[in-house]
Order: sequence, then structure tokens, then C-alpha cells
Amino acid sequence: MAVGFNSALIVGAGSGLSASLARAFKGEGVKLALAARSTADLAGLAQETGAAVFTCDASKKSDVDKLFGDLDGGFGAPEIVVFNPSYRTRGPVAELDPAEVEKSLMVSAFGGFLVAQQAIKRMLPKKRGCIVFTGASASVKGYAQSAPFAMGKFALRGLAQSMARELHPQGIHVAHVIIDGGIKSERRQEPAGKTASMLDPDAIAATYLGVIRQPPSAWSHEVEVRPWVETF
Amino acid sequence: MAVGFNSALIVGAGSGLSASLARAFKGEGVKLALAARSTADLAGLAQETGAAVFTCDASKKSDVDKLFGDLDGGFGAPEIVVFNPSYRTRGPVAELDPAEVEKSLMVSAFGGFLVAQQAIKRMLPKKRGCIVFTGASASVKGYAQSAPFAMGKFALRGLAQSMARELHPQGIHVAHVIIDGGIKSERRQEPAGKTASMLDPDAIAATYLGVIRQPPSAWSHEVEVRPWVETF
Amino acid sequence: MAVGFNSALIVGAGSGLSASLARAFKGEGVKLALAARSTADLAGLAQETGAAVFTCDASKKSDVDKLFGDLDGGFGAPEIVVFNPSYRTRGPVAELDPAEVEKSLMVSAFGGFLVAQQAIKRMLPKKRGCIVFTGASASVKGYAQSAPFAMGKFALRGLAQSMARELHPQGIHVAHVIIDGGIKSERRQEPAGKTASMLDPDAIAATYLGVIRQPPSAWSHEVEVRPWVETF
Amino acid sequence: MAVGFNSALIVGAGSGLSASLARAFKGEGVKLALAARSTADLAGLAQETGAAVFTCDASKKSDVDKLFGDLDGGFGAPEIVVFNPSYRTRGPVAELDPAEVEKSLMVSAFGGFLVAQQAIKRMLPKKRGCIVFTGASASVKGYAQSAPFAMGKFALRGLAQSMARELHPQGIHVAHVIIDGGIKSERRQEPAGKTASMLDPDAIAATYLGVIRQPPSAWSHEVEVRPWVETF
Repeated sequence: MAVGFNSALIVGAGSGLSASLARAFKGEGVKLALAARSTADLAGLAQETGAAVFTCDASKKSDVDKLFGDLDGGFGAPEIVVFNPSYRTRGPVAELDPAEVEKSLMVSAFGGFLVAQQAIKRMLPKKRGCIVFTGASASVKGYAQSAPFAMGKFALRGLAQSMARELHPQGIHVAHVIIDGGIKSERRQEPAGKTASMLDPDAIAATYLGVIRQPPSAWSHEVEVRPWVETF
Repeated sequence: MAVGFNSALIVGAGSGLSASLARAFKGEGVKLALAARSTADLAGLAQETGAAVFTCDASKKSDVDKLFGDLDGGFGAPEIVVFNPSYRTRGPVAELDPAEVEKSLMVSAFGGFLVAQQAIKRMLPKKRGCIVFTGASASVKGYAQSAPFAMGKFALRGLAQSMARELHPQGIHVAHVIIDGGIKSERRQEPAGKTASMLDPDAIAATYLGVIRQPPSAWSHEVEVRPWVETF
Repeated sequence: MAVGFNSALIVGAGSGLSASLARAFKGEGVKLALAARSTADLAGLAQETGAAVFTCDASKKSDVDKLFGDLDGGFGAPEIVVFNPSYRTRGPVAELDPAEVEKSLMVSAFGGFLVAQQAIKRMLPKKRGCIVFTGASASVKGYAQSAPFAMGKFALRGLAQSMARELHPQGIHVAHVIIDGGIKSERRQEPAGKTASMLDPDAIAATYLGVIRQPPSAWSHEVEVRPWVETF
Repeated sequence: MAVGFNSALIVGAGSGLSASLARAFKGEGVKLALAARSTADLAGLAQETGAAVFTCDASKKSDVDKLFGDLDGGFGAPEIVVFNPSYRTRGPVAELDPAEVEKSLMVSAFGGFLVAQQAIKRMLPKKRGCIVFTGASASVKGYAQSAPFAMGKFALRGLAQSMARELHPQGIHVAHVIIDGGIKSERRQEPAGKTASMLDPDAIAATYLGVIRQPPSAWSHEVEVRPWVETF
């Protein structure tokens, strides 16, 4: 079953999840654009997946405007947009740096709005498109010592819900995927003997693609994924 | 991508969703058993999908014991079990027939327990298997005039959550799919000009299969599906 | 501030919480009836609070019918009804006794329906009354090894929600209080040096009374209480 | 029953709810400080309740620092802090002004963090205090055409949850009250013949005080209030 769309933009493309998504999109024949605050490490992935690469700090309106302007000038409007960026700072509330708290809101939530707004401006005339926001355990549970991350991720979930209620009836699918656990990477490996105890980014990407290819008669708005050993 | 399991049992097999699931399982090469309170209408589907058919009132312990005993004697223990049955009665709480309320609990929730218990007894030794419970809008929201359905579906969700927390660490995937909208059928057609305004059972089945084929490193426990036009 | 009602019935009156509620109602000048499966231990509380005492297994329709019939014949229809009973059995799902699971549903949820139905039949003509259901942590989270309790408490919450949506517009307040932690009693004392680490039943009762005295312009449907040290 | 604290600060004091809270605090003998972006309209309330009045834009760190510095210099550290401010802008996501979206996050959520941080710095040494955040329907449901309000209120709820999990074990009560409906005021009156169909601010204030006076053995973190006629 094809994914049903021809082009995708991944914002916050520097993560292992994004790399898995990029490969999955390529496997479906989807034309790909990658955007990240720093693109220094994206050259290999871009070459592997044939992706166009763009520099963009998603929390800055001028950057997001430029990203979509650049896309308009060549790549075209992406039919799928995945928003991954988040920023977190940890610590007791009394000791947090307010500038860091503000940055958490700006990157994780305001950035999501900026990207989604530009994306849907281009999707609405065609009444077609899919936006996926990447959430976390902190999207639905505010943990101690981690208020800024909860603030940003709760806010992003509020945005996703409002957009789903507004845009589903206009033909645009808005999904929010809650990643409830640590993602395996080269740096973060599973403990010996604990196979599949961390989230495999390829497996997460498969769930993203499952949501993206849902037809309008049966859309999921919110899906959570966690490893079999994760408590919840 | 194969579904990863070789056999499936659908309990409450008389619905349109079950027919779509049966066809989807057949498409994946999964050996199929269908159980329903009345099997009169299942002959065609059984022939089409090569399914074995069993009569079973899932709210009765003796029936469920017999079903799994019969499966043990030939079909074998199913690796996938989908539990669909529900019973509902509507009306103001003051006017409800208590016997009907009890039946709602017995069919929608106690039946789920009986089937799941027999299923996992056979899955646990292999530390492998997948159980999917079919929920509804009423699983997460108790509507006026519909208390018995809410009672049954809330209870089934409680069972599903407890089982996920107990059985995920033992290698058995437990999922709960919330079907939030009306399912299209021969009798219930979409209004003219409102394409995809009802849930297409084939599309729901595709989401079930997506959940079933998730590897243990990224399991979803709860997924909801609704048509693009559905308010929520 | 008076509680705004003249009479109350506590069903499942054998607990420490019920004793605290009974004393709180007496303190507000509310006439009191206590019902329990076994009334052997209620003599002292009845004397202290001036309560009428009734034997009733709330999971049995004939018992509940008799209870309300008896109330009609003397005490009168209670304006406040608190439903406390629950039954639980613990263990891995594969090892649970189905009869115990059924009993959990019958006592915790079906009993709630039976009592609430009789109560509102008498409240509806006056468009006035308050019903409070006692929930637990398991009302919103299904724990491993405790599926039957989750099934019963989830179902009771579904009933409470449906009733609130049906009956609030008819002037009857329906509330669900989630007790998230262990309740202190003579048998279950706080560890030494951990003041207030368990729920004080008098403090819970104060919250019940706060909910009961809310005017119709600002009703709470769901309130949770937990000790300051409780993780959640 | 006394409220258990001696002093309170209401931030965002210009609303009808704040006026009711101020009067309720005065009725309990609690010393009061009122802070608002504009204090022009607070003279009458200040005189009536004996409150000290402060100008403060809660979304600005310098303003919040100055507010608490001023309090330190005379009023003293407030034992109760109520945070009310919110900012909203409505419209389709494609048409929203990004500056207004940013302001929604800054006022509704970042302001809550700034105020709470200063408040708990002063409460922690005494292991005593109560912070109440004012939520809305949009705290738990993102409505179409109202994404910025959902973003701000979801974020504030995330903050409140994280703070509760961090600070409850340190003796500080953190509550989040969801106001689910329109509040009656001089400008917004109930329709004729629909008594109590809007939230009475005095009734909401009574619920706030009920939460504030809870002893640590039975704290509520989240409470919702709505009028009897409100759908939910």
C-alpha cells in the first residue's frame, strides 16, 4: 500500500528518528526535504535519500518563512510535514533559568505553530495533506524536575488537537505521536540482554507511515508507541 | 511487511469490521478462526477466507472454555485474538432494565476477560501473541442515555490497560482500538455526497493490522480511528 | 455554609471513610441512613450519628429495591446518596477466578447502577439531589495484577459520566471522587515519622462535603484526592 | 473552617473571579495582595478588601521580579498564590498572527512559570504554601479556531502537573482548576429564565477555597467546575 502522498518535509531532521523516517519515505518513493537548525551532519542522509536540505531554526518566523519560500521556489509545497524539534532543560522549578524555559516553549510549541501554519496555507487550497507532530511521554504527563519540557510538549499537543478539529473537516490529516520511551541510537544502546527494550527508530517510523497512509474514512489523531518493557 | 503471526481468532465475528479483518488476515496468509454467538451468516465469509467457524457466546464461561478446547483440538492456539463483542441498551438511567445493564457488562467486559484469559494461558508459555480489544467512543466518554454501553466499554478498557501493564513485559502485545464513529455497511450507507464520512471497515482493519505487526520495540497500546468529518 | 440538603444515604457504610462521612453529615444537621452488606459493626456509628441502619447487598436488585422501599416507608427519599462498595481480587489475568471477576463487576459497577437508579427515580420529580460515587486510582489507570478492580472502577466511572451528562441538566448533581492512595485506619497506620502520608478519612469527607454543597452554577463532576507524598 | 494560610496574592486580579476570590479571602481573614497589568479598575476592590495593589505584567520577568521584591519589602511572601492571567486570539490557524500566538504562550504559560518560580522560592524554606493555577475548557481540549488559547492553557497544565509532582513531597500544594464554562459578570448575564446557567464567580471562589484549605493528607491537584446546563 503506497503512502498516498508524493512529497514530505521533515523539520528537526537531525535525530535518529528523522533518519529512519527519511529512509522510510524514500522506500515509498516520496520526494524528501530535510530542515534542521544545523545541517552539518545531514550530508550523508541527504545523499542516501536524495533529500533536499535546508537550514531552519523552527522557532524563528523569518527562518520558517524562508524555508517555505525556498521550497516554493523549487521543491514545491510538501504534502506531508513532520515536526520533530523540541528543547528541554531540567531541574527544580525554583532553579530553572527563565530564558531556558522560554526557549522550551518557543522551540517545542511555537515552532510547531510556525511550521504548521506555513504548511497548511499550502495544503488548504488542495484540501489534502498530512501533518504529524512528534510528542513525548511529557505530552500527557508533567514530570517532576522537567516542567519546561512538559510546558512545551503539552502546548504542542494543544496545537495538534485544535488543528485536527479545524482541519480534518477540510481534508487535512493532523496526527500527534507520543513517543513514550528512549530511542535507541549509536550513542544510546540497549543494555546487554535486553533486546528491544528501547524504541527502535525504524519501528517508530513504520508507525508514522501507517498513520500517514490512513484514508480519510479512518484517521487516527493520537497514537503512542513504547517498548514492551516500558512501564506506563 | 508480514504481520508476524500465523493464526488469528476473531471473537464477535458477525460484524462488517470482522469481515474486513478476516479478509485482511487472509491477505497476510494468516490462518483464521471465527467465533460468534450465531454463525448462521458466517458461511460465506468462512468459505471466502478459509476460516474455521465456532459458535460461542463470549459472556459464558462454558462457551469460551469449549471454544478454546475445540481450537486446541485442531486449529491450535491462536497467536492473534481480536475481541469485538459488545451489547448495549439505551435510555434514561431511571428507565433502564437492570437485566439489560447486567448483560451489557457481561458481554462487553466480562466476555473480554474470559476470552483474553484463555488466550493468554496459551500465549504465555511462548511469550508471544497479540490481543486486540475493540473499543468505541463510549470507552472514554460516557454519553447521556447510554450508561450501560459506557459501563461495558469503560470496563473493557480497564481490562486492556491492566493486561498491557502485566503482559507487555512478558512479550504479549495488548492493544485497545477506539472506533470513534459509525461504521459503513450495506445497511448503513454514507449520505449522498459525503464520501468517507463513515468509517470504512477495510480502513479500520488496516489500522488493526498495523498495530498487530508492530515489533516489541515500539508497541501502541491505544489507537483511535474516526472519519475526517467526525467531531470529537 | 450549610450543605444544602436534609438527608443522606451512605451505601457501603462499613468503611472508615463512611464513618467520617457520617460524622460530617451529622455535623451539618443532615439526617442519615447507613446501608451495608453486614451491619454488625455499625451499631456504634449509628448511635453516635443517629443514623438509621439497613442491610443491603448493593449488587442484588432485590436488596436494593427493598432498601429504597424501606426508606420510602419512613426515612424518606435521601437527597444525597454516596455509593462506596467495591470488590476486588488480585492476581495475574491467567490465574484469576472468573467468578471473582464477575463479582468485581457486580459489586463495584452494577451495584452502583442499581443504587443510583433507585435514587434518581426519587430525585427526578424534585429536580434536586446529589449522588457521589467513590472511585479509586484504578478508576483511571488499570494496574498490572489488578484487572478486576480496574474493570469495576472504570465501569463505575463510565456510569458516573453518563449520569452527569444526563442528569446535570435535570438539576441532579453527579460526582465521582477518585481516592488515589491508601486510607488511614486503626489497622492501617502511617509509618512512624510520616505524618499525613496516608489519606485521612476526615479530610476526604471534607472534600465530599465541599462537592455536595456546590451550587448548580459551579458543579465539579470529578475530583481526586491524594496524600502529599503520593506519587502519581 | 479556617483556610489555614495568612496571606494571598492574586495575579491577574482584574477579573470578576478575582474579585470574588478577594472577597472570599477577606472573609477568611487572609491578608491580600492584588497584581494586574492595569490596576486602574482595582481601587474599589482594594478598598473593600483591604488589599495591597501592584502593577505587574506577569509575562515579563522584570515585572514579576519587581512584584515579589516589593512584596518582600512590606507585605511579605504570600502563602497562597492564585495565577489567573491568560491571553487568547481566535481564528483559523492559517490566518493567526504569529505575534499573537507568541503572546498567548507568554501570558498564559510563561507568566505562570515566572510567578510560580518566585512564589515557591519563598515557600520552599518553610515547606508550606499553596499555588492555584486557573485553567479553562481549553486546558484539556483543543478547540477548532482557538489553537493559541489551547497552546497556552495546555502548557500551563503541564507546568502545574510537573510542579505538583515536584512540590507536593516538599509540602507545597499545587492545584489546577478547570473552569469549564462562561463566567457570569455585569457584562455577561445569564439568558432570562436560565438561572445558574453561567458560572457564578462566588461559587467558583468557594471551590478554590475548598481546595486551598485541604490538609496535606488529602490534596486535590485538579478540579473542574461547570454550570449544571453545560455540555461536556
